[in-house]
Amino acid sequence: MLNATLGNLTELIIALTALRAGQYVLVKASIAGVIVTNTLFMLGMSLLLGGLKHRVQEYNRNNARLQAGLLFLATIALLIPSVLAEADTVTPKFTQTLSLGLSALLIASYALSIVFSLKTHREFFGGAKHGDSSEAPWRMGLALGTLAVVTVLVALVSEVFVESVQHAAETFGLTPAFVGFIIVALVGGAAEMVSAFSGARKNRLDLSVGIALGSASQIALFVAPVLVLLSYAMGPTPMNLQFWPGAVAMMLIATMTAALVTNSGRSAWFVGVLVVNVYLAFAMTLYLLPPQVK
Amino acid sequence: MLNATLGNLTELIIALTALRAGQYVLVKASIAGVIVTNTLFMLGMSLLLGGLKHRVQEYNRNNARLQAGLLFLATIALLIPSVLAEADTVTPKFTQTLSLGLSALLIASYALSIVFSLKTHREFFGGAKHGDSSEAPWRMGLALGTLAVVTVLVALVSEVFVESVQHAAETFGLTPAFVGFIIVALVGGAAEMVSAFSGARKNRLDLSVGIALGSASQIALFVAPVLVLLSYAMGPTPMNLQFWPGAVAMMLIATMTAALVTNSGRSAWFVGVLVVNVYLAFAMTLYLLPPQVK
Amino acid sequence: MLNATLGNLTELIIALTALRAGQYVLVKASIAGVIVTNTLFMLGMSLLLGGLKHRVQEYNRNNARLQAGLLFLATIALLIPSVLAEADTVTPKFTQTLSLGLSALLIASYALSIVFSLKTHREFFGGAKHGDSSEAPWRMGLALGTLAVVTVLVALVSEVFVESVQHAAETFGLTPAFVGFIIVALVGGAAEMVSAFSGARKNRLDLSVGIALGSASQIALFVAPVLVLLSYAMGPTPMNLQFWPGAVAMMLIATMTAALVTNSGRSAWFVGVLVVNVYLAFAMTLYLLPPQVK
Repeated sequence: MLNATLGNLTELIIALTALRAGQYVLVKASIAGVIVTNTLFMLGMSLLLGGLKHRVQEYNRNNARLQAGLLFLATIALLIPSVLAEADTVTPKFTQTLSLGLSALLIASYALSIVFSLKTHREFFGGAKHGDSSEAPWRMGLALGTLAVVTVLVALVSEVFVESVQHAAETFGLTPAFVGFIIVALVGGAAEMVSAFSGARKNRLDLSVGIALGSASQIALFVAPVLVLLSYAMGPTPMNLQFWPGAVAMMLIATMTAALVTNSGRSAWFVGVLVVNVYLAFAMTLYLLPPQVK
Repeated sequence: MLNATLGNLTELIIALTALRAGQYVLVKASIAGVIVTNTLFMLGMSLLLGGLKHRVQEYNRNNARLQAGLLFLATIALLIPSVLAEADTVTPKFTQTLSLGLSALLIASYALSIVFSLKTHREFFGGAKHGDSSEAPWRMGLALGTLAVVTVLVALVSEVFVESVQHAAETFGLTPAFVGFIIVALVGGAAEMVSAFSGARKNRLDLSVGIALGSASQIALFVAPVLVLLSYAMGPTPMNLQFWPGAVAMMLIATMTAALVTNSGRSAWFVGVLVVNVYLAFAMTLYLLPPQVK
Repeated sequence: MLNATLGNLTELIIALTALRAGQYVLVKASIAGVIVTNTLFMLGMSLLLGGLKHRVQEYNRNNARLQAGLLFLATIALLIPSVLAEADTVTPKFTQTLSLGLSALLIASYALSIVFSLKTHREFFGGAKHGDSSEAPWRMGLALGTLAVVTVLVALVSEVFVESVQHAAETFGLTPAFVGFIIVALVGGAAEMVSAFSGARKNRLDLSVGIALGSASQIALFVAPVLVLLSYAMGPTPMNLQFWPGAVAMMLIATMTAALVTNSGRSAWFVGVLVVNVYLAFAMTLYLLPPQVK
């Protein structure tokens, strides 16, 4: 929880900078990219790295299920305006009102999920006990330290970062879709990945799955709707929840993958390979996609 | 089973009245609305109301799985003609023949499911035993009584009800989509909801899940196909199984949600919040949707 | 594994013959048809036939989960180029490059899955022990014998078979879609079905599920990508992984069905009815589909 909030500070700061500049395409690409990258790459690499060290890893699946359920709700909420906006008869005003309503629904759901997991049913979300937890606090401290340092650094350079995205795309010949979805999400999530991968290597998959899916659901159910609300105050025009259909499809597939994979509460290295390969299929597509699309 | 059949009498009577009048758009909206409302609102509110009273509720998931499987089959059967009808090359004759064939398939599947759950594998579908079952028959009698009274009342007013739907929409400024999907389904299912919610409060989630999903699958696999067959005798023209793509999408998401949620056979209050919020997202969309769409 | 490889020789030989002739539509229909037929008809009939003899069948679900996971990855990999090709802005060159990349990804995943199931985690994939295994080798020998004979026969007639497909369609008034998806897949998979059904009757569902899903995942993750690579050497033009949207939809639904059904590791006869009826719904649609579509 703390992890997720600190980790997403990076994304929030980047998004606020882009929001003020009215770069809604970049804001949305960044939101979708973080959700897809966390649920597929961060989760998959955690399962793979943990599985290469430990034969079979068991973990408390209650938290994974809660986060997967939240992501499922968020994906449907993002799906509705995006699909309906393709129809001719829908007006921008309808999309905007619907986005406001759905944002309120998502924020309320997120708030209730915190009441549920931290208050009324707290004991269901404790991690499974493992032998080497005596050593963990020290490493956790290191991870949190890394997190704090990277967050501050990214916050300092975020304005430059957002401005230079377009430039970087041209320089390296990368498509804007690839930069927005993959590069920004990987760089912005670097600190969280250190925590998640280190947890997996220490056979604490609860921690890794919690960071990966918790961070994704926080973006989807809190950061994205809050940005819609803030756009009324800060942005040049109100922002809606209408995403590129391809982004919605990727979020939907990522959510389904995470739900299927964490359903059993057990993992071995090949499960990680499968999840990472779904991510690689998406990354490859975005890399090759001609720039005029999206 | 008895519950589901009595409960759906209401919907059947409304649908027959509309069928005779050739109001196929209303018939289909009512069918889709009942499926979505039962699998999301009735199930979700049962889980929520039960969860607010009982910390964690366990229930026999065999019946939930059977009903979810039936709903999955029905959703695919409704998906095929609806998606293909969007393609230019498909003729109305093809859609009609396909609808007839799929109707026969659904009715046969429903009949076999009754043989399975009431004859060959009956013992798998008994509810989990709970302490307060001595008191249950009395309350069940009350619920069945309510059911019978409401059914008779609705049957009496159904002709008026169907005629007044368009009128009510104009008076309250509601869109026809919202009235057809949400209002009709909520009013028509009121009696079943009394049973389902009362069962959940008494920690008999088997009963609630059975009513909610059993009623939805009966509509999808029995009422809808029977209406197609009856339309040849009673309706002005034959009715097909081609639905509005949005309705099919909602039914598909509702079925997936029910399958995911009942998979574990355990529930707490927040699971109900998630399911109800998927319903609220749909209801909000239909409420806001401009009237010309659908 | 051996079963799957021998069984798919038939499909590989048919596909190579069609590949050399540049009949890519037939190659793709045959690939999609085998995947859908194996995951729905072969699996469903195994569950049904086994369930009619044995009240409840339990089986090791690790292999079913692995194969379902592989099929899920493959379906997404086939979905991407097929959906993107519908967009106007995508060039054939993009689709071809993407198909090459995805083919490499699928072959790598398949190779790693063999390392996983036969080397590093071999003990997880042994079948559950059953009483009558003493008799099994003899029946297995018979099944393998049948397999070998049918494979040789089909190999001999494959050239004629491919040429006569169009002719048969005209003679019997069958649509090319029905012949390509259903007839070719049923005939080509006949030998495997003998093995799978015989295993199910002997209460060895591990074997049946392994043949049905293992054969489907081998086609999707090995045969299809290898055919793309071979088309550069053997075919008149390079082949891509862009499928008819209807075929992708059927593969997606088939994969989801198999994943849902094998998730519990238990089965009774009605589960088989459900799976076979999904197949019948598809077969009925393809049978009725006007020839100009596809």
